[in-house]
Amino acid sequence: MLNKNYFSIDFIDDKVIFLDQTQLPFIEKYIETDDYERIAAAIEKLEVRGAPLIGIAAAYALALSIKKKSSEENFNKAYHRLSLTRPTAVNLFFALDEMKKIFNSERNIEYDKLVKAAKKIHSDDIEKCRKIGWNGLSIFKKKSTILTHCNTGKLGTGGDGTAFSVIKTGFENKLVEFVYADETRPLLQGSRLTAFELDRSGIPFAIETDSMAAHLMKRGKIDFVITGADRIALNGDSANKIGTYSLAILANYHNIPFYIAAPTTTIDRKLVSGDDIIIENRSKDEILKVNGIPVTSEHFETYSPAFDVTPAHLITGIITEDKVYTFPYNFIQ
Amino acid sequence: MLNKNYFSIDFIDDKVIFLDQTQLPFIEKYIETDDYERIAAAIEKLEVRGAPLIGIAAAYALALSIKKKSSEENFNKAYHRLSLTRPTAVNLFFALDEMKKIFNSERNIEYDKLVKAAKKIHSDDIEKCRKIGWNGLSIFKKKSTILTHCNTGKLGTGGDGTAFSVIKTGFENKLVEFVYADETRPLLQGSRLTAFELDRSGIPFAIETDSMAAHLMKRGKIDFVITGADRIALNGDSANKIGTYSLAILANYHNIPFYIAAPTTTIDRKLVSGDDIIIENRSKDEILKVNGIPVTSEHFETYSPAFDVTPAHLITGIITEDKVYTFPYNFIQ
Repeated sequence: MLNKNYFSIDFIDDKVIFLDQTQLPFIEKYIETDDYERIAAAIEKLEVRGAPLIGIAAAYALALSIKKKSSEENFNKAYHRLSLTRPTAVNLFFALDEMKKIFNSERNIEYDKLVKAAKKIHSDDIEKCRKIGWNGLSIFKKKSTILTHCNTGKLGTGGDGTAFSVIKTGFENKLVEFVYADETRPLLQGSRLTAFELDRSGIPFAIETDSMAAHLMKRGKIDFVITGADRIALNGDSANKIGTYSLAILANYHNIPFYIAAPTTTIDRKLVSGDDIIIENRSKDEILKVNGIPVTSEHFETYSPAFDVTPAHLITGIITEDKVYTFPYNFIQ
Repeated sequence: MLNKNYFSIDFIDDKVIFLDQTQLPFIEKYIETDDYERIAAAIEKLEVRGAPLIGIAAAYALALSIKKKSSEENFNKAYHRLSLTRPTAVNLFFALDEMKKIFNSERNIEYDKLVKAAKKIHSDDIEKCRKIGWNGLSIFKKKSTILTHCNTGKLGTGGDGTAFSVIKTGFENKLVEFVYADETRPLLQGSRLTAFELDRSGIPFAIETDSMAAHLMKRGKIDFVITGADRIALNGDSANKIGTYSLAILANYHNIPFYIAAPTTTIDRKLVSGDDIIIENRSKDEILKVNGIPVTSEHFETYSPAFDVTPAHLITGIITEDKVYTFPYNFIQ
């Protein structure tokens, strides 16, 4: 029997409980803390990852920063610390600013009010995931075989995920035949996390290396590709895990639809196009080591962008909690 | 000081000496043997790999099979055993058949004659590598930054390699600015072997994961892509390490030339197009483990083709020891 009751984050008895995703799929270990610094460290170490989930974790962390004493100093220190954890995820800044607005809305705000605000961000995300899954049903032309990249499920959000919610909702409606999950080097979010979630959800799947996608497409095995996004510009250009841009070109070449699923909070209302998106560069250890063990000489140089930007014209549709947007995209500022 | 004097295979004092490539780049360990079965096992375990090198190793192995006693039984047993090691590399069958022709050319053929024939296959390959490198100089329009995939150097051939020989000859002629080496999952021939060879040759380089190539191309960093091939059809369709087809599409999308370098023995004169190329499927361990260490659950399913086929129209040129062929390709049967 599969234990389907895993969760990525919860807030119980004035503590955040989160699943340490670096240990998956081997160990399902939950960490309890009321220390915002521990949560900031968890975001940096990718124990907690996925754009929406980072936002939720950061919101709870900000609430906890004034648990002992509600002061501007405590709040601002935590705000500053959390804002430095991951530069690319727009949801992080959305959540931080949402919490700041509430913190600034009255003098000597109580801790309970910030907890309530963070819980609202969390429950909103659960609802958005549900709606994304539901809206995504319209992209299925038939019972489909789907290719996905990185992790976009419960482990990356507060609810059932973004792209993963579309897959899961499709599966529950008998519209999913099979899923191919890119392993997603360098950090293997696909083979470790997405595979874990597919397995727990009872969805038939296989893991492949990132370089195998084109061959699968050529063999006519893929009906559509779907991924999440970390930041979407007003014109639809989308930053997501490195390798997404590659998949979009390959899908385009093979006339296979390529979709992105993301909550509308992923849309950066200040960003006109994807050209200005800052791409985080990751440590060379992630390429030279796998799960901490060296696979090649530590002296070799690497090139390791964490994200790439897929131009809007390669994206067949962007599935949000509102609706499925299609190219050309003109999101409102 | 770099020790440039590594070698992949040699034949000294009636023994084959080969470099165990599974231990690179950490340990440069050479194995001596006069047992053809040990060489067959080395080919299967990828201790010896790369299409031309497999052919050379198999030729020496066949010679050794009649070292103690020249008999049809000994020869045929070894021939059969070696033919089962790797199904896709055409050079293997070319070398085996070349040796069989010589074995059958006279009654009671001496061991020395087969050794001489194997050495001829080896020295011919060294010469072909040299010529491929030399012919490849014509593809440089300027001092270039090159992207390559898998391993195509001294470790894959008898000489300086195929695609790697073009890079190395280009570098010696001050035509190479920088090389990006795909790590080449699942077996990491790029980060382990190509990086080792680039380092030993003093060529500036960085390793990237296979999914990063498109982003590099978009940023205008790549002047051309060059890879080797395991089997080329008469129309130019080329089977090579999984991920090559993907690179060819990405290069095409970004208007970047995509080259293949291979000796003419890689052309399968019986193969009209790439559609009929048999693709070897590899063990799921190669995806679920990295260097033997599990990265995810051993219970998960995988999809793992070892090769893909790049259609001829995506290949700007095929660099051989004869000349640089360009599309459309019409190799003679």
